[in-house]
Amino acid sequence: MKRPHILITNDDGYFAPGIMKLTEIMREIGDVTVVAPEDPMSGSGHAITVRTPLRLRKIGEEKGLERWSCNGTPVDCVKLGEQIVLKKKPDLVVSGINHGSNAAVNIVYSGTMAAVLESSISGNPSIGFSLCDYDHSADFSHVDQYVKKIALQVLEHGLPSRTCLNVNIPAMNGKPINGIKLCQQADARWVEEYDERKDPANRDYYWLKGRFELLDRREETDEQALMQNYVSVVPVHHDFTARHAFEHLGKYDLDV
Amino acid sequence: MKRPHILITNDDGYFAPGIMKLTEIMREIGDVTVVAPEDPMSGSGHAITVRTPLRLRKIGEEKGLERWSCNGTPVDCVKLGEQIVLKKKPDLVVSGINHGSNAAVNIVYSGTMAAVLESSISGNPSIGFSLCDYDHSADFSHVDQYVKKIALQVLEHGLPSRTCLNVNIPAMNGKPINGIKLCQQADARWVEEYDERKDPANRDYYWLKGRFELLDRREETDEQALMQNYVSVVPVHHDFTARHAFEHLGKYDLDV
Repeated sequence: MKRPHILITNDDGYFAPGIMKLTEIMREIGDVTVVAPEDPMSGSGHAITVRTPLRLRKIGEEKGLERWSCNGTPVDCVKLGEQIVLKKKPDLVVSGINHGSNAAVNIVYSGTMAAVLESSISGNPSIGFSLCDYDHSADFSHVDQYVKKIALQVLEHGLPSRTCLNVNIPAMNGKPINGIKLCQQADARWVEEYDERKDPANRDYYWLKGRFELLDRREETDEQALMQNYVSVVPVHHDFTARHAFEHLGKYDLDV
Repeated sequence: MKRPHILITNDDGYFAPGIMKLTEIMREIGDVTVVAPEDPMSGSGHAITVRTPLRLRKIGEEKGLERWSCNGTPVDCVKLGEQIVLKKKPDLVVSGINHGSNAAVNIVYSGTMAAVLESSISGNPSIGFSLCDYDHSADFSHVDQYVKKIALQVLEHGLPSRTCLNVNIPAMNGKPINGIKLCQQADARWVEEYDERKDPANRDYYWLKGRFELLDRREETDEQALMQNYVSVVPVHHDFTARHAFEHLGKYDLDV
């Protein structure tokens, strides 16, 4: 098999330890092009840049590796990476390794996973990797074999059309990881979300904070797998239709 | 029944004609609080603001109506609206009326729909309204009865738990609208997406553009309904699990 070409992005910025680790692992598998945000972009969701011109900057090149930064969001990075930098379909797109969990409802806010979802919409096999540790200096030393195994399986067997994977890895906790589990996205939400303060001129301002609340007791979720020290893998798609809702909506009178 | 309290946001900014129209219609139904972005935020996806302090500014108050602007994204607006401005659960949250379609895959990039999805995650009945006309001076004169009917049905019958509605309305085209249809989200993507230019210093820059490509021939989609001059209503949730993918993933060897 030809050496695969792998496109890498993230939402923590091109200099984050997580993307350095991911780049190191992917170079064992294929040729790598990194296109990642100039600045940290976590919480950027599926934002795209429509009012600012986008720019790319080459920040490094060596055998089998090119690194670029971009002034846009993770979604911009993955689009520009494919269409302007590579000018061809990559064999695999990976994003991360995110500093912090993107399991459960966190996927909705995640720039890491938005890049992956975008890439899958345009037809590429795509995987988002996240470590359940928000620290910039998080310990990534236990992740290699899991990241590599999942990437190799996707390269070998492919993914169903326009579907991607959301992979979350337990934080280093001294205990061995029990394995890799296919899961469903757990239902959850964030509550108590604002820190209210006064500035020196006595004007109110607010910082987003919050507490994660798990609302799902099913056994087969990503949150359960992570609590049991497994790496969780959830297949993800961009069809947000709530099929279970049609029965309820049958009650509606929609005649105008 | 007590007069309902309705929270309104959008992604085009508090001054956009679409939110003025939506406010006018909602005031016929209940008391209204508007919390909307200071600046246009379309394409903001499900972005949240984590690195900048958030601020609210009251821009108007009269009987049954309060209007606020916020320096954050549509998702920030709906969170702050509920937690800081209202300090209680609204009876209904509506977003829009967006200048431009949020049907099919457009929902993924939409700030309008992100606000609605966020609000439904926190448990509110929520509806996003969009007009399939991107023009700032779009004609909204045909939308009233459809917007009002759908809002009243949601207030009367509720929505399934943590599910919201994505409503798209055909652009004014001189022909009468045929009615309201419950639909599935159509599959689609954007292609040929960058306009490459040189600045006066001969440096490259890129504008996002693109062409919408429908990939779905099913009869029951929002795109089909809109083409047939119906208002489309798609129930939406935040569980992105691709259930159809598990069979394919059964081929993977995930033993490490």
